[in-house]
Amino acid sequence: MARINEHYRTLSAGYLFPEIARRSRTFLEEHPGRSLMKLGIGNTTEPLTPSVIAGLHRGVGKLASRDSYSGYGDEQGNSDLRETLAAYYAGRGVKLKANEFFISDGAKPDSGNIQSIFGLDNIVAVQDPAYPVYVDSNVISGRAGSFNREEGRYGKLHYMPCNEENGFFPEVPKVKVDLIYLCSPNNPTGAVATADQLKGFVDYARSNKAVIIYDASYAEYISDPSLPRTIFEIEGAETCAIEINSLSKFSGFTGVRLGWSIVPEALLAEDSEPGELNALWNRRQCTFFNGASNVVQEGALAVFSPEGIAESRQLVAYYMENARIIREGLVSLGLKVFGGDNAPYLWLRTPGKMSSWDFFDKLLEETSVIGTPGSGFGPAGEGYFRLSSFGHREDIIRAVESIKANLKLQEKA
Amino acid sequence: MARINEHYRTLSAGYLFPEIARRSRTFLEEHPGRSLMKLGIGNTTEPLTPSVIAGLHRGVGKLASRDSYSGYGDEQGNSDLRETLAAYYAGRGVKLKANEFFISDGAKPDSGNIQSIFGLDNIVAVQDPAYPVYVDSNVISGRAGSFNREEGRYGKLHYMPCNEENGFFPEVPKVKVDLIYLCSPNNPTGAVATADQLKGFVDYARSNKAVIIYDASYAEYISDPSLPRTIFEIEGAETCAIEINSLSKFSGFTGVRLGWSIVPEALLAEDSEPGELNALWNRRQCTFFNGASNVVQEGALAVFSPEGIAESRQLVAYYMENARIIREGLVSLGLKVFGGDNAPYLWLRTPGKMSSWDFFDKLLEETSVIGTPGSGFGPAGEGYFRLSSFGHREDIIRAVESIKANLKLQEKA
Repeated sequence: MARINEHYRTLSAGYLFPEIARRSRTFLEEHPGRSLMKLGIGNTTEPLTPSVIAGLHRGVGKLASRDSYSGYGDEQGNSDLRETLAAYYAGRGVKLKANEFFISDGAKPDSGNIQSIFGLDNIVAVQDPAYPVYVDSNVISGRAGSFNREEGRYGKLHYMPCNEENGFFPEVPKVKVDLIYLCSPNNPTGAVATADQLKGFVDYARSNKAVIIYDASYAEYISDPSLPRTIFEIEGAETCAIEINSLSKFSGFTGVRLGWSIVPEALLAEDSEPGELNALWNRRQCTFFNGASNVVQEGALAVFSPEGIAESRQLVAYYMENARIIREGLVSLGLKVFGGDNAPYLWLRTPGKMSSWDFFDKLLEETSVIGTPGSGFGPAGEGYFRLSSFGHREDIIRAVESIKANLKLQEKA
Repeated sequence: MARINEHYRTLSAGYLFPEIARRSRTFLEEHPGRSLMKLGIGNTTEPLTPSVIAGLHRGVGKLASRDSYSGYGDEQGNSDLRETLAAYYAGRGVKLKANEFFISDGAKPDSGNIQSIFGLDNIVAVQDPAYPVYVDSNVISGRAGSFNREEGRYGKLHYMPCNEENGFFPEVPKVKVDLIYLCSPNNPTGAVATADQLKGFVDYARSNKAVIIYDASYAEYISDPSLPRTIFEIEGAETCAIEINSLSKFSGFTGVRLGWSIVPEALLAEDSEPGELNALWNRRQCTFFNGASNVVQEGALAVFSPEGIAESRQLVAYYMENARIIREGLVSLGLKVFGGDNAPYLWLRTPGKMSSWDFFDKLLEETSVIGTPGSGFGPAGEGYFRLSSFGHREDIIRAVESIKANLKLQEKA
């Protein structure tokens, strides 16, 4: 008699974005004729750039002839792409070996799967609010305990609140934790960790033999040169951190799918030898994964050509101009806005202490704009709201204009 | 103090194919000037066909312009591709709904991940020999118990021996098991289950509320019209089976990456409602996966056009002619060969009762041909050897000629 994985039943709710999609559908059904302006999911909207398109076509073309056709590639990714990534990091002053890079089909799968190389008895610390995958993957695996509906928290997770007082980057835990998820630039708050803040976590991890899982998916949105764009800029991080990254937001690969994880050979857990965690992730990928698409890897190589980099940076600049426009519009209404300067997300304090979902409904009802309720990212996100700067310029402007014209603030503020 | 997932340490050995690659490299280092002929890994060698190439280019082209660009798609796959698959199955007389199809990046990931929606206390039954991922994914998750080196078996797995006596398809278990992995056409033995044999398992699963995980990745290699190409041809299978499939071997997508799993709404576990397992796999995919590449999905759509189907069938016929050539060559040497008629794999009884790895080394040493040791697929594979028909025609002929000319059979037979 097959039995299901009961941990699925402890998940607090449907995955955030499907729930938003559901409410949006319902709204449209009830309001025929209205159209929505989406500042919700961080989904890229601008076309791939010319050199990436050329790279992808090249990848397809190779498969059309016997001499250049390739079947299964290495589960870890093509060695030229791994070398290219190592060289790109070296250009930022960070030395990593090609075999420490594992190419994947994206940062979301890697964020979800990385916990599986660790035992079920590890204490997991997450930023609160956080990208839901960190929490849900640990709930499903059985590390989170049961959900306390009143607190909005899982009993066995360690929550690290990110709030206005700490600039949305947490203090190091005062208790012992084993796995620490950090995301910088942060989704959802848009906050970016300073080198000092990261050093605090690296020091904590090293003295406690904890492992930091560092999601740097938005690193290319950092324009302030004093802010670290990889945790490996911090001395000693290679002994205590795994970094996850992707081309989704840098180069518009959200639908194309390509990411990578860096598992340094020097990385240590309590009971492991140097190299063992690197080998463990390698074994995980060799068993559960069969490599990223060869077509897509060819496109990724094109991203890291000089033209590809320049074009991708223009894409980033485009979205960051959107962020500026959103910020300016919201600030003009007297709203309190965070993020959006070195990150594509803006984190808005809801007016009049509304709950996040109430504000979601209000914004939708009054302005037809879709955003993301902060509480969907954790209890400390309650009373906040995420807006994404991914969108066509004219749609962003239209959404901001609609907010400025239609959002009723007086009655609630 | 982070602790690793100790189950990784109970894995019996390195993943089979990396071990073959290691021995091959060593051989080449020790024998400079020799070149290898690979009949080992089932890796496609022929280029993608014209309509698929056109489909992939179309997929890339769409991403080049604002109006047709797409970012994140549905985690379950694009609805047009899901509908197309449902229609393709309907053409075989099997009624399934589009929302029962989940598009993925391949059958290997799905084969590895599917266990995660079930509890850790399920008893898992595997064919012996079997594709290593079924076993290893359950070892890593903790359902397999410890490895008994003498028996070559994990203590908590239920092994279903496939041997010459039962035509390489097992009897239904005499004990209660919960999850049953079946692969037909079989990798590695090349055996194909009859409708009666599958009915036996469906009946067993229904009366025990077990779930069959049915890997049909080689279904398109079945030419005998009396053999089932999907388990859903068997009445009642929709209440007790999940099917996994892929375009890797049908259309040369090994490196392109596209597969699917069918989780029927009617599927039941001991403690579940109808629809719940479908929803569970949906939730799994929404948390740990972000959809197959949009470019690749466009290529997959092209596979299912009338031209795409016809071209893919020609590819299959090409590899099956290879299989015929290998079989004929081996049989002419007096070797005992199975499979290779409705499957791209040939399963060879090693001459002189040699061990599988000894024969691997002998074949490599004497003929420069790489095959796959049967024991790498489980203890009942000992004394057998897998040869794959994936290769360029002239390479297959060259390998067969080399075996015929150089394999020393007298001394060992």
